[in-house]
Amino acid sequence: MADRILLAHGSGGKLSHELVRQIFLPVFDNDVLNRLDDRAEIETSGVRLAFTTDSFVVNPPFFAGGDIGKLAVCGTVNDLAMGGADPLFLSAGFIIEEGFPMELLKKIVESMRQTCDESGVKIVCGDTKVVEKGSVDRIFINTSGIGAVPEGVSISGSRAKPGDKVIINGYIGDHGMAVMAQRQGLTFKKDISSDCAPLNGLVKEMLGVTKDIHVLRDPTRGGVATTLNEIAGQSGVGIVLWEETLPIRNQVAAACEILGFDPLYVANEGKVLAVVPADKAGRMLESMKKNRYGTESAVIGEVVSDHPGRVVLATGIGGHRIVDMLVGEQLPRIC
Amino acid sequence: MADRILLAHGSGGKLSHELVRQIFLPVFDNDVLNRLDDRAEIETSGVRLAFTTDSFVVNPPFFAGGDIGKLAVCGTVNDLAMGGADPLFLSAGFIIEEGFPMELLKKIVESMRQTCDESGVKIVCGDTKVVEKGSVDRIFINTSGIGAVPEGVSISGSRAKPGDKVIINGYIGDHGMAVMAQRQGLTFKKDISSDCAPLNGLVKEMLGVTKDIHVLRDPTRGGVATTLNEIAGQSGVGIVLWEETLPIRNQVAAACEILGFDPLYVANEGKVLAVVPADKAGRMLESMKKNRYGTESAVIGEVVSDHPGRVVLATGIGGHRIVDMLVGEQLPRIC
Repeated sequence: MADRILLAHGSGGKLSHELVRQIFLPVFDNDVLNRLDDRAEIETSGVRLAFTTDSFVVNPPFFAGGDIGKLAVCGTVNDLAMGGADPLFLSAGFIIEEGFPMELLKKIVESMRQTCDESGVKIVCGDTKVVEKGSVDRIFINTSGIGAVPEGVSISGSRAKPGDKVIINGYIGDHGMAVMAQRQGLTFKKDISSDCAPLNGLVKEMLGVTKDIHVLRDPTRGGVATTLNEIAGQSGVGIVLWEETLPIRNQVAAACEILGFDPLYVANEGKVLAVVPADKAGRMLESMKKNRYGTESAVIGEVVSDHPGRVVLATGIGGHRIVDMLVGEQLPRIC
Repeated sequence: MADRILLAHGSGGKLSHELVRQIFLPVFDNDVLNRLDDRAEIETSGVRLAFTTDSFVVNPPFFAGGDIGKLAVCGTVNDLAMGGADPLFLSAGFIIEEGFPMELLKKIVESMRQTCDESGVKIVCGDTKVVEKGSVDRIFINTSGIGAVPEGVSISGSRAKPGDKVIINGYIGDHGMAVMAQRQGLTFKKDISSDCAPLNGLVKEMLGVTKDIHVLRDPTRGGVATTLNEIAGQSGVGIVLWEETLPIRNQVAAACEILGFDPLYVANEGKVLAVVPADKAGRMLESMKKNRYGTESAVIGEVVSDHPGRVVLATGIGGHRIVDMLVGEQLPRIC
């Protein structure tokens, strides 16, 4: 293991997993944390709750389609929703650089409120720290969230089964490329806008189709490739992705091409990967397409018993290539 | 209101309150947040929970008597305990500067675990972000926490009543001066060590004396003076502090003298201010003194109906001076 923290330790990819497994898990060791899902499921006085935390350090804090405030609410709402939980309460912890314009803070706070309103959560506690100029890059926000887990729902990265279908709710790579374009001052003929969105409404509708959803996970840092690798690893199954079915906008594909990114590794902030029993996939897809955040939903692959722990891309010309977890850091500070 | 964020907006003093009241409350507006206690009390499926969040940016991250890890666990455990809640679950969000030594991270994580063990809480979810060199000063940690509020307990900054006694569990100013000494490379004949400690055990014993504790609050940023001002304001009462009864170590008093600080405004991380009915104060004090974090407990003042919203210091020579909330920033990045 490296003797210093590298950017890649925060990438969501291989080194992030190494850090978690070698530094955090052995020390904090407990059943809940060890499950390695996007949120903890805890029980207190017989009530099942979901609990999650996320810090946001996106650079720049304002980008096409959102800002760090919207992102901070969506990120935590979505982590809760990925367990089928109803997000209820959020905390908000701000770390702000001395000199940060009050007007921008107001914008961020307003944007958090709008996203809270949309997703039906309340910010019930908060904290603000201000540090000297140069001690933090403008503004970082942590949100933690509590949700209620409905009866009969058991969604986990370890429940994918051979035969299951993999569904995504729309175009991949939008968020990462929007932030990247903003950061680099790039403009494209068609704008690229972040997909940042609260997905709890969509997930609720999906659970209306069947409570037997095996896995839900939002492909943020590390993108679709890394998230599917996590699922394959946790469930001990193989996953085949069908390249031709992957929804990608032309301008995102073009931006990736120009900048040398693989869209499979680019972060999304309004996407969910769902692993569902094959006989439910059709109805699930139909239902998802009716939601504003699911109009471009597609079945993009399936779970297999071959090559456990591995994700394989079936290409249009009949080839296959292994899609590994993100190695190194592709896009630092994307969220 | 200032058009840019100042260090004093994070001081815990006047400008912090202004920021909360003018920027956060009007936008996030909800009953729970508006109570302005150290943690939110929320109810879900009939279960009463406490929820709180705190980011830690202490500089330096290691100091006599603790480190940012211990502080991060104590801070959130104590915020929960200040509502009489049993702390149960913690989240941990790390923001780390690229290049931070892995050995130091291990130390911090180990120290978090020890403090969790002592206070009986579990870290059940986490998040790690790594940012480029220069984008954050070494390491910041956010912890959020969930606790269970026992039946019959109703502790709030708004419950202080004329006649109540104010008790503190020991020496004031240790934490702030320990961090300051470390930062400035000062040494004193007798070392100054942070009082950083988890107080949930002490609070549990205090609730054993009576559930009718009116207020509990930990005087962290802004110190005893600011915290008592908050209570006076929330409860609409006056508070008189008896100068001669305030427990202060000689070396802390000396360090404050040299550096020009008033110990009443210096941060504590293992102290609780308790406002209790007068007829319970004797037994409360007795019980507190038996706890390892309460051996130097003292009754330091009382609640009065005069000068509502104001804290007054009764000095040894019979004088009185108004003790205001912290104005400006005394010691940035103390927690």
